[in-house]
Amino acid sequence: MNADKLDTHAHGGDYSGTLLDFSVNVSPLGVPDAVRVALSEAVTRADRYPDPLCRDLRAAIGAAENIPPDWILCGNGASDLIYRAALAIRPKHAIVTAPAFSEYEAALSLSDCEITRYPLSAENGFRLDADFLNAFTPGTNVIFLCQPNNPTGVTIPQALLFRVLEHCRETGCRLILDECFLGFLDCPEQFTLRGKLPDFPNLLLLRAFTKLYGLAGVRLGYALCADAALLEQMRRCGPPWNVSELAQAAGVAALRESAYVDAVRRLVSRERPKLYADLSALGLRVIPGEANFLLFRSPAPLSDALRERGILVRNCGNFHGLDDTWYRVAVRTEAENRRLIAALREVLCEKRNVL
Amino acid sequence: MNADKLDTHAHGGDYSGTLLDFSVNVSPLGVPDAVRVALSEAVTRADRYPDPLCRDLRAAIGAAENIPPDWILCGNGASDLIYRAALAIRPKHAIVTAPAFSEYEAALSLSDCEITRYPLSAENGFRLDADFLNAFTPGTNVIFLCQPNNPTGVTIPQALLFRVLEHCRETGCRLILDECFLGFLDCPEQFTLRGKLPDFPNLLLLRAFTKLYGLAGVRLGYALCADAALLEQMRRCGPPWNVSELAQAAGVAALRESAYVDAVRRLVSRERPKLYADLSALGLRVIPGEANFLLFRSPAPLSDALRERGILVRNCGNFHGLDDTWYRVAVRTEAENRRLIAALREVLCEKRNVL
Repeated sequence: MNADKLDTHAHGGDYSGTLLDFSVNVSPLGVPDAVRVALSEAVTRADRYPDPLCRDLRAAIGAAENIPPDWILCGNGASDLIYRAALAIRPKHAIVTAPAFSEYEAALSLSDCEITRYPLSAENGFRLDADFLNAFTPGTNVIFLCQPNNPTGVTIPQALLFRVLEHCRETGCRLILDECFLGFLDCPEQFTLRGKLPDFPNLLLLRAFTKLYGLAGVRLGYALCADAALLEQMRRCGPPWNVSELAQAAGVAALRESAYVDAVRRLVSRERPKLYADLSALGLRVIPGEANFLLFRSPAPLSDALRERGILVRNCGNFHGLDDTWYRVAVRTEAENRRLIAALREVLCEKRNVL
Repeated sequence: MNADKLDTHAHGGDYSGTLLDFSVNVSPLGVPDAVRVALSEAVTRADRYPDPLCRDLRAAIGAAENIPPDWILCGNGASDLIYRAALAIRPKHAIVTAPAFSEYEAALSLSDCEITRYPLSAENGFRLDADFLNAFTPGTNVIFLCQPNNPTGVTIPQALLFRVLEHCRETGCRLILDECFLGFLDCPEQFTLRGKLPDFPNLLLLRAFTKLYGLAGVRLGYALCADAALLEQMRRCGPPWNVSELAQAAGVAALRESAYVDAVRRLVSRERPKLYADLSALGLRVIPGEANFLLFRSPAPLSDALRERGILVRNCGNFHGLDDTWYRVAVRTEAENRRLIAALREVLCEKRNVL
């Protein structure tokens, strides 16, 4: 495997630990203290096999989500569950939006699936509209949607999402709804489809601990679905010990950290409008996302110049439906966001002077 | 997912942490101290995404194995790599031995593969012999073998393994050789096929940190293969961040622990013959395995009675080619092995009195 030939930064992320990382959408408050303690305790039993059924963790998630544990499957990050879902369902025709998280398509491509990319247009602010229902064909059996969408941060109106869900049920199609960034919205409960699970066994929700609890390095996500047989099939579509002992312990501890989640949500809610305003004031076109990141368009390349200033941003050139004039930045702390804006001002000013 | 309906102990393992666990084949010396420290340090950066290419870890493995990093792919335990290999190769016809680690077949069954189970007989001490070459058909494109085999602990003679490897190359077949227990042999270097990698791009070796370094709860394994294109394809057959930041740090630290490995090997080398003799002295038929576990046959059921005495063993009833009269026990410390033998003596004595 030649590392140079690989698209090594396809997803962003600073593995060196030396840059101020706006390229990943992780909580800017770091690992909650109690989770850190739980992880350190779990290290002492690292020689024991993890429970392949994640019983304690599923019980904790079930209690937190008010969902029976049978409707929960845990994964090595939500991305693990995307691959397992694609392998378990083996769809013939799937629809994803463009742009969307690239792993939906990567996972679907493992099983001879025809993929339709439904374009979301910049002109329309990357909003999903009712025309989406016309993209269905009689053979469509999987839809991937993301609420709020990555990398745009744009939410899908609940009324439209209900219509899509109904339409999926009528046509024998599964809706896989990625709610990994839901927890960063001001009012997540207004947007989740969790309440629809009992009536829609064709609905599969994806959730992550990775982002909201700052556990990207630990890897932990889960799926919620009333079709327990599908979850069992997904469990068999990969190795049985996919969730480490450390991740299981971290998850149980994280679910108790409601004060941490409140703090993250307050920070994002306060800083996102300021970051939006500051980016706009620099003359950049910013999409009014509602999540913990913002998508904007730049008149000049930014990545190298920002990296020289110690800052990493996510160029979106490898997202279908976007090009390399688009960038995604996380909403971080006030001071960090100011550093980003100051660096951007310098870079854009230099570029303008050169032109 | 109904936990009661699942074969929850299909692989052994005490998730409660309250039993003396002979059911899993993990180092009895626990997590090496330096690895524990590395894990605790990694907890502080648990909010960073892990490097999906595991560059530092692959460099360390490459140096330890004298293998170019391009020939290495890391996984979330060796089982992750078994699934990725099966998905990447999508064989039409595969041969596994019976008995063998059940995950080979579970992974192969994801891709419409015809599977031939080549029987290893108890009469023959579960040894692989040259007749195995006759099991090949013109369409055979994958062979799974395990050196030493799990659950028998029996090694395959090097001369035969070379013949199988040659035969595979001649017939366009890949040999996936699971060397996860190799490190527990008295002389691993006499048994590994690592030296054959440059001349046999059809050879894929599987290795685990899980067992030798007591890292079952952390999940870490790797594959070695001179066919870098296959490794790249395997990388794409699953989520990109499969190896956690914690596992990567643990792996790099573990590779420095040669004194720990020596201690494990000395312990197993010293205790295995004693455990073999003690089990035999109880009138049990024991297979003369060379690994860190022993397979034996019991005239009476053991699991429940041993569990009442705080001991967990691995009943082998769910291995193809064995039945529930067979048991596998790990080689543990001298005191622990004595506890097992004492409990077994009691249980067998009771059963004899009842009969």
